[in-house]
Amino acid sequence: MKSIIVRNIARAESAAVESLKGFGTATLHEAMGRTGLMNPYLRPIYDTVKACGTAITVSCHPGDNLMIHAAIEVCQPGDILVVTVTSESTDGMFGELLGVSARAHGVQGLIIDAGVRDTSELTEMKFPVWSKAISAKGTVKATAGAVNVPVVCGGAIVNPGDVVVGDRDGVVVVPKADAAKVAKAAQERTERENLTRERLAKGELGLDIYSLREKLRLLGVTYVD
Amino acid sequence: MKSIIVRNIARAESAAVESLKGFGTATLHEAMGRTGLMNPYLRPIYDTVKACGTAITVSCHPGDNLMIHAAIEVCQPGDILVVTVTSESTDGMFGELLGVSARAHGVQGLIIDAGVRDTSELTEMKFPVWSKAISAKGTVKATAGAVNVPVVCGGAIVNPGDVVVGDRDGVVVVPKADAAKVAKAAQERTERENLTRERLAKGELGLDIYSLREKLRLLGVTYVD
Amino acid sequence: MKSIIVRNIARAESAAVESLKGFGTATLHEAMGRTGLMNPYLRPIYDTVKACGTAITVSCHPGDNLMIHAAIEVCQPGDILVVTVTSESTDGMFGELLGVSARAHGVQGLIIDAGVRDTSELTEMKFPVWSKAISAKGTVKATAGAVNVPVVCGGAIVNPGDVVVGDRDGVVVVPKADAAKVAKAAQERTERENLTRERLAKGELGLDIYSLREKLRLLGVTYVD
Amino acid sequence: MKSIIVRNIARAESAAVESLKGFGTATLHEAMGRTGLMNPYLRPIYDTVKACGTAITVSCHPGDNLMIHAAIEVCQPGDILVVTVTSESTDGMFGELLGVSARAHGVQGLIIDAGVRDTSELTEMKFPVWSKAISAKGTVKATAGAVNVPVVCGGAIVNPGDVVVGDRDGVVVVPKADAAKVAKAAQERTERENLTRERLAKGELGLDIYSLREKLRLLGVTYVD
Amino acid sequence: MKSIIVRNIARAESAAVESLKGFGTATLHEAMGRTGLMNPYLRPIYDTVKACGTAITVSCHPGDNLMIHAAIEVCQPGDILVVTVTSESTDGMFGELLGVSARAHGVQGLIIDAGVRDTSELTEMKFPVWSKAISAKGTVKATAGAVNVPVVCGGAIVNPGDVVVGDRDGVVVVPKADAAKVAKAAQERTERENLTRERLAKGELGLDIYSLREKLRLLGVTYVD
Amino acid sequence: MKSIIVRNIARAESAAVESLKGFGTATLHEAMGRTGLMNPYLRPIYDTVKACGTAITVSCHPGDNLMIHAAIEVCQPGDILVVTVTSESTDGMFGELLGVSARAHGVQGLIIDAGVRDTSELTEMKFPVWSKAISAKGTVKATAGAVNVPVVCGGAIVNPGDVVVGDRDGVVVVPKADAAKVAKAAQERTERENLTRERLAKGELGLDIYSLREKLRLLGVTYVD
Repeated sequence: MKSIIVRNIARAESAAVESLKGFGTATLHEAMGRTGLMNPYLRPIYDTVKACGTAITVSCHPGDNLMIHAAIEVCQPGDILVVTVTSESTDGMFGELLGVSARAHGVQGLIIDAGVRDTSELTEMKFPVWSKAISAKGTVKATAGAVNVPVVCGGAIVNPGDVVVGDRDGVVVVPKADAAKVAKAAQERTERENLTRERLAKGELGLDIYSLREKLRLLGVTYVD
Repeated sequence: MKSIIVRNIARAESAAVESLKGFGTATLHEAMGRTGLMNPYLRPIYDTVKACGTAITVSCHPGDNLMIHAAIEVCQPGDILVVTVTSESTDGMFGELLGVSARAHGVQGLIIDAGVRDTSELTEMKFPVWSKAISAKGTVKATAGAVNVPVVCGGAIVNPGDVVVGDRDGVVVVPKADAAKVAKAAQERTERENLTRERLAKGELGLDIYSLREKLRLLGVTYVD
Repeated sequence: MKSIIVRNIARAESAAVESLKGFGTATLHEAMGRTGLMNPYLRPIYDTVKACGTAITVSCHPGDNLMIHAAIEVCQPGDILVVTVTSESTDGMFGELLGVSARAHGVQGLIIDAGVRDTSELTEMKFPVWSKAISAKGTVKATAGAVNVPVVCGGAIVNPGDVVVGDRDGVVVVPKADAAKVAKAAQERTERENLTRERLAKGELGLDIYSLREKLRLLGVTYVD
Repeated sequence: MKSIIVRNIARAESAAVESLKGFGTATLHEAMGRTGLMNPYLRPIYDTVKACGTAITVSCHPGDNLMIHAAIEVCQPGDILVVTVTSESTDGMFGELLGVSARAHGVQGLIIDAGVRDTSELTEMKFPVWSKAISAKGTVKATAGAVNVPVVCGGAIVNPGDVVVGDRDGVVVVPKADAAKVAKAAQERTERENLTRERLAKGELGLDIYSLREKLRLLGVTYVD
Repeated sequence: MKSIIVRNIARAESAAVESLKGFGTATLHEAMGRTGLMNPYLRPIYDTVKACGTAITVSCHPGDNLMIHAAIEVCQPGDILVVTVTSESTDGMFGELLGVSARAHGVQGLIIDAGVRDTSELTEMKFPVWSKAISAKGTVKATAGAVNVPVVCGGAIVNPGDVVVGDRDGVVVVPKADAAKVAKAAQERTERENLTRERLAKGELGLDIYSLREKLRLLGVTYVD
Repeated sequence: MKSIIVRNIARAESAAVESLKGFGTATLHEAMGRTGLMNPYLRPIYDTVKACGTAITVSCHPGDNLMIHAAIEVCQPGDILVVTVTSESTDGMFGELLGVSARAHGVQGLIIDAGVRDTSELTEMKFPVWSKAISAKGTVKATAGAVNVPVVCGGAIVNPGDVVVGDRDGVVVVPKADAAKVAKAAQERTERENLTRERLAKGELGLDIYSLREKLRLLGVTYVD
């Protein structure tokens, strides 16, 4: 990985991004064939958090947030910062000031595979953050990294411009080329689930709705009284 | 473990279950001689969570929620689902739809030694869940397991029909045969604690209330000015 | 470490403690040259938590809270209990009754490198607690330990009488001799940050405010279009 | 759990124990329908470790090895000590002296859901140990526990007298009633695997031997050149 | 991610693979600008382990090794299996039989972001394995996955055909296009290090060899007697 | 913590260091009243490892080994490097070259609360290392730290000049002032244990040797046949 900052990236089309906004991460991840999900150790800093935008990716040296400052300059309204480190770290690389700066440039939120601080202030600002840790530990600005290269964040590959969607259940990455298709599949899934929900609410069983009784029999599961 | 679903189980008597409802997990665990507690990695998905009911136990293959669907059918009002996996997993095996289905059958809550998803919706429904992880990761329905066999959940043995009590401090299992006795011991402990609380609030010391000064002396603890 | 209880300790001067109360942990940790922070695994039991006081240190055997009872006697109004164990433990060594007792003696909060229980009650009391775990698991009172000796809590050295400050971001220890100096440095940092915040809010970049463009160049970071 | 020591327990028949000795844990666990395995965090202290015997179960307070001393008295030649703690601990509860004592009573090894120490000496003695941690941390003898009650060790239920088998891959528990049946199933599996091994060694594919091509097709897996 | 098996992939040129064989992972990772390293939780099953080959990537459902069987068919002599799961798992997805099969097809080793079993047998065979866990836990063959798609293994992106190098320090991925360039940089680094080693062995200081005294001064580090 | 390098420190007397060399960490930790032990996550890189020397302490920024180079200059024959980082890191901050350099200055070993690399070469050199991780991940030399200030390593306080003793069971710190006294207590303990070992080897029980039967009775432990 060279120490580069890519200024102009191809982002998912804004119509496609828009079309993904109504769906939760569980639905989107299923709509992509159960892929694209980040690890569950990434947790939101407050419960009502929600964000959907295009990824600006940042790769930092652990304990160093120099490249986040560089990344803000290339952000556009609607972007989400996706920050990774080259080895495990829980340091608080992002705080209120960076939140203010990011918001001034239209950034919709932060996914960080490391720590965050000033969580009270960021919560008050309603600036959505998913992080691996909350830590007041400060960082330096001494070592090179990269902006807008492919990164691994929370175990998922993120390419610059991909759509990143987060809610209380986690964070999912939708490759920019697939955004429209995924929105469509998510819509279909949601409609199916609406019907299923009604039937379940009336007491029908998943065993019957999903035709699982025969599967249990084939697998050799037996009933005992 | 054979792949069986036990339809009819002996549950703790409902009077005994009722009598346990007023107590917190810390009190119940002490009333049982400091036993029966699940590991603290099981956390509630919202802070005001509270549940007390009889266990329907489920053993699943990791990444597979087939047997939860099978379990719902044998649930009765007042039951709590206790779901385990045969090896460590954080997948979101249970979500809103299963919550709706479980509630339709009178299920009081879920203890799951794995992940849960749709946490916003489950919180809104006030469906109590204690889990090891929150994860949007979906599961398949492909491999056999068992319902209503003895399981280990969060490090504690749970037999079908045992009473399971959860609150913000964690989850405790009361063997069905002991429920009445435990409720009585918990009541006595609560009364003792009420008296102790009053004395402590006035500034009396635990050292004096519990007669610990002599113990410190015997253990060779010395005071230095 | 001998099994001693030191009754009288030199505490940070109350004016200095007072002067630290306005600052968050991130600011204080930076004002000390990025030192003094406890590990981020210590988390508050509720989000609006905040405390600042002088440390009463307690070293316990794991699974044993005898020495906490001994420590309460030597507490004075404004103190904070800093409890450690001699090996890793998540047991709930402190609960509502100890909270009531501590509060009766003017204790401002608890930092515990182990577990806490009765978290609903402690939250209702607005008694600030930072802990490694929430666990209903009870403890015994059988083994000697020490009160007011130097301890390691959450990876940081705490001497009796040091100032301990906690908020939602974590916990920081200010050596008693440095309290006044740290408050001054924190004040200066806060003023600088207020100016920076305004500029960032208007869209100025950290790259320019902190003069990072030259650093990027020297590190060999290149821009690509 | 009452504080009891059960002196006489029903052990698996020695012929059945003997018949299990030739098999590895992976084979036995499969022969039981993929059950009975302890968590993989239990690791042997040396690589050539191997043991098979009947369980004497011990439940200790964390940081306290009193009950291990009590357990040795009820051990018989061929037994294996299975030690658990009532909450997570890594303390070195067992060392060379207990190893010498255990061996003098014919004990074949130790499974401990906590720490072990004197690992150089125990390795030299070729005393097989599987533990969660290696730690020089000593323990006290102050709190009651139990011997020969059902316990959970490494996530698996162990009843006194069950057969415990350990090797470099981990530890498996065979319920005493199932020992003979499991040995038979393991023998059959081993024979099948011997045939399969030969075919695989010649280059035949698992895809063909296990007839997986049709399964891939049914699952919708497609080949791309 | 679609459920596909890509039969023919472009592999790094064998001359380039050959040229990387003499270097350790630390050297290669530095030669790539400190990138390409997998997480340190991936550990070899024996200490003298060493492997260098071209990646066949496999993405499996947790608890399911169906796709490993499919992958073997597309392996060529010199390949290394790189196996990932779609969520965290420690199950023993690969054992002796798969080792025999892989070897019959010329596979040089296995990197698996999950568990491995039959470690005694695999060690005896000198079949190099790096895994996240050692576990006897078996898996099923029930759910689709993919072979030879880009995967994330141990936090690093691996594309089919990339060069994977493992030793006792860990595992590094060299993108196939960079293999020759990386070998050259590694050679240069090794030569520099040989000279440095000689000087250090004679007692010269890194402070002088790397000209760090001025840096310390600029950073404000001061000497105290 | 200021960025200082303390050149001259008071070391434990060499006679005292010498007198500690015969004892294992378990014995020394007990001889100090069960204190001074580092966390068990610090593991040796090879099994026959053993070291005893005086501590040169080093505090580094995570991902940065600049201060280790500075520390070597102030080392004397018989010293042991004790390296910590200001927040959690597994990076390989120390490798073969630093091992060669350290050895050239008479350094006896390394305790590092982070990662180490070149473990094959360091093992071949028989250079004793206890670390939190093995990782090929390289570090930079960009940020200030300190040498010979009090540090926390593996959860234990280490002052420069203290005696550090490591073996396969872990690492223990003996405060320099206590070295002679601890050696004496360790000698006494060893003699007592030699007698106990003989009795245990003959089949006598710890219950009788340590007079534990009365304690069991007082704790209410009862025997059941």
